[in-house]
Amino acid sequence: RVDGGRLWGSLMEMAQIGPGIAGGNNRQALTDADREGRLLFQRWCEAAGMKVGVDAMGSMFARREGTDPDALPILIGSHLDTQPTGGKYDGVLGVLAALEVVRTLNDLGLRTRRPVEVVNWTNEEGSRFPPAMVASGVYAGVHALDWAYDRTDADGLRLGDELERIGFKGEEPVGQRKGHAYFELHIEQGPILEEEGVDIGIVTHGQGLRWVEVTLTGRAAHTGTTPMDRRLNASLGAARIIDRIESITRAHGPKAVGAVGQIVFAPNSRNILPGTVVFTADLRHPELAVLTSMSDQVKQAAREVAADLGIGVAIEEVGAFDPTAFDEALLADLRAGAGRLGYSHRDMVSGAGHDACWVAKTMPSAMIFCPCVDGLSHNEAEEISPEWAGAGTDVLLQAVLQAAEV
Amino acid sequence: RVDGGRLWGSLMEMAQIGPGIAGGNNRQALTDADREGRLLFQRWCEAAGMKVGVDAMGSMFARREGTDPDALPILIGSHLDTQPTGGKYDGVLGVLAALEVVRTLNDLGLRTRRPVEVVNWTNEEGSRFPPAMVASGVYAGVHALDWAYDRTDADGLRLGDELERIGFKGEEPVGQRKGHAYFELHIEQGPILEEEGVDIGIVTHGQGLRWVEVTLTGRAAHTGTTPMDRRLNASLGAARIIDRIESITRAHGPKAVGAVGQIVFAPNSRNILPGTVVFTADLRHPELAVLTSMSDQVKQAAREVAADLGIGVAIEEVGAFDPTAFDEALLADLRAGAGRLGYSHRDMVSGAGHDACWVAKTMPSAMIFCPCVDGLSHNEAEEISPEWAGAGTDVLLQAVLQAAEV
Ligand SMILES: NC(=O)NCCC(=O)O
Ligand SMILES: NC(=O)NCCC(=O)O
Repeated sequence: RVDGGRLWGSLMEMAQIGPGIAGGNNRQALTDADREGRLLFQRWCEAAGMKVGVDAMGSMFARREGTDPDALPILIGSHLDTQPTGGKYDGVLGVLAALEVVRTLNDLGLRTRRPVEVVNWTNEEGSRFPPAMVASGVYAGVHALDWAYDRTDADGLRLGDELERIGFKGEEPVGQRKGHAYFELHIEQGPILEEEGVDIGIVTHGQGLRWVEVTLTGRAAHTGTTPMDRRLNASLGAARIIDRIESITRAHGPKAVGAVGQIVFAPNSRNILPGTVVFTADLRHPELAVLTSMSDQVKQAAREVAADLGIGVAIEEVGAFDPTAFDEALLADLRAGAGRLGYSHRDMVSGAGHDACWVAKTMPSAMIFCPCVDGLSHNEAEEISPEWAGAGTDVLLQAVLQAAEV
Repeated sequence: RVDGGRLWGSLMEMAQIGPGIAGGNNRQALTDADREGRLLFQRWCEAAGMKVGVDAMGSMFARREGTDPDALPILIGSHLDTQPTGGKYDGVLGVLAALEVVRTLNDLGLRTRRPVEVVNWTNEEGSRFPPAMVASGVYAGVHALDWAYDRTDADGLRLGDELERIGFKGEEPVGQRKGHAYFELHIEQGPILEEEGVDIGIVTHGQGLRWVEVTLTGRAAHTGTTPMDRRLNASLGAARIIDRIESITRAHGPKAVGAVGQIVFAPNSRNILPGTVVFTADLRHPELAVLTSMSDQVKQAAREVAADLGIGVAIEEVGAFDPTAFDEALLADLRAGAGRLGYSHRDMVSGAGHDACWVAKTMPSAMIFCPCVDGLSHNEAEEISPEWAGAGTDVLLQAVLQAAEV
């Protein structure tokens, strides 16, 4: 078993970097805080005897050599970047649990046949630079490197430039490091495990996502002097589309989720009808056909509302991943490992996207969930217990012992 | 008659300061650009032989002495601040037309019995610091000075501090300068005069306004993992309230206008249900009873929608002025003046708020409108013709000649 106290200590130390405003973190991708977090992680990895490589997307790979120089490594990890008002565990747990696995192997003096690599994927959250999971997406060949470099944040800064600025545009070609298998531990970010009192979630699938960005073009005009019937009212358009997103989502059954978390009015002045409104619908479903239907209906609704108000509409998918099934054999091993340790477990579907969903395109992959308080995530109040973290990391250690072949 | 070419030249020179992104201006109140515009205005006033005083709200009063040292002055002016994406004429025309009136009096060597004071009121637009017309409101005793100083912009900067920063927190107590009458020339900001081919609007009334700021408190949570029935969805709440604002406005007849031009989601991330959403409803009507009914119904709708979704709601009026009637005698003089000059004119109601609406509480006041292209204002594409500006300024000159007593 791992040293749960040491793991917790590292989690708390990392949480000092990029503090939020309410007890959580703001360590968004490619900020100075992200850089500081990466450097701390690098020091820890080197202290644990690993050699750290960085690829051209800034993803970090800390390698513990195996006994067989020709064997493909076992990759374990997640991401250190957070939401602007993020929690201390989302992503971070998966990276530091992977580090704890290596520290435990060191403590036990265990050599594995396969190398073990602890990975920190760049910009998983996608809050600063959409889409989410962009670096693991380039790793898996889903996105082109140059396309990823050209993603911009709200201030128009390019991902590629910011990567260079923080000194993490690495030399290694993205995707060069192959793997035999990938495991990722993550907090559930939903309420099921805690409510059912189950220790471990065995993630059989990840649901799919569409980020549908809608740009409405109205006419900037005075709110007081412009007659109602002469308005090209983009804020009203946005309101009606957001309400339609709710009803379209509800109409697609209990597994469908959909909402709008981000909107920008321009010029955003109380006495100007906005000239443009941009917002993104976040739509998800575990089945591709249903997800596609939701996304098609939302786009259609946006066009209808815009036509009705006489305003312009442009639609772009700024993020998308299809539902993913994880590797059956690895899942069976995870269940067996949890069982050996005496942890209760259940199969579940991930509501969030994870780097594992892209990595699964390149090697057998699987995920472990641990509970989180009240299912709350993407909130600074996100919380877990040291016991939950330790149990998830124990299961990760079991998986590595087996896959890396002691 | 005034020198229309000189007036136009000054308008174009002022428009160089705080250029916008699309041919208009961004010279918001108490920015560096506002400071630069004020300094240019001050130089012009001094060159025209006037002495410039500044009150504690930063409003500027440039005085041309009269022959009777005991006579109350005639005040003429408007504001030099603009919207973030504002036009070159909204407010600016009224200030520079007032300056042109003094320049013309100088050219003609005319002495008036009463002094004439050209006024630039601070922060009329209210886009950076709500409410609009805040300095004329303090002047009229509607707001307390300290309350006005405590208004903050989106970055939390205080109005009082910014006034000091740009060097325009003046020595004079606000409201010290009394006046015999106040005239303000402004662009119509609506389509009527241009459509009817009328030269001059005689503004008999200003309609009332309520800025109802709604703060919705949901729960920041993951858009992908949070079950639909466990969401406290503030963005959905905002959407439904904005749609209700439209229908409430429509239900109050053809003279009612209402919309939302400003909204802020926090944290505004695509995969976080917003923890809070703040937006302001801009509601207007020429009759107080109807305006009150609109505002009450919007507040009620906000409470209903919030209760329905289980989210928190707080409501604050961040701006309010009642419908205003301008001075009958001055209006008659304006009509007569326009008639003498051969300009067509019609009575009208102002859709926008103006400093004159507050000043009217302290002295007889009246307003003159000139047309603007396509009724467009609060848009960088706002446009007028030199002839329209000249005609409005001619009527202002006539009013001053009569009221200041040549
Ligand atoms: N795990 C996680 O929150 N990932 C961010 C991408 C998403 O929104 O699902
Ligand atoms: N004239 C003008 O646009 N004033 C700003 C206050 C308002 O929104 O009416």
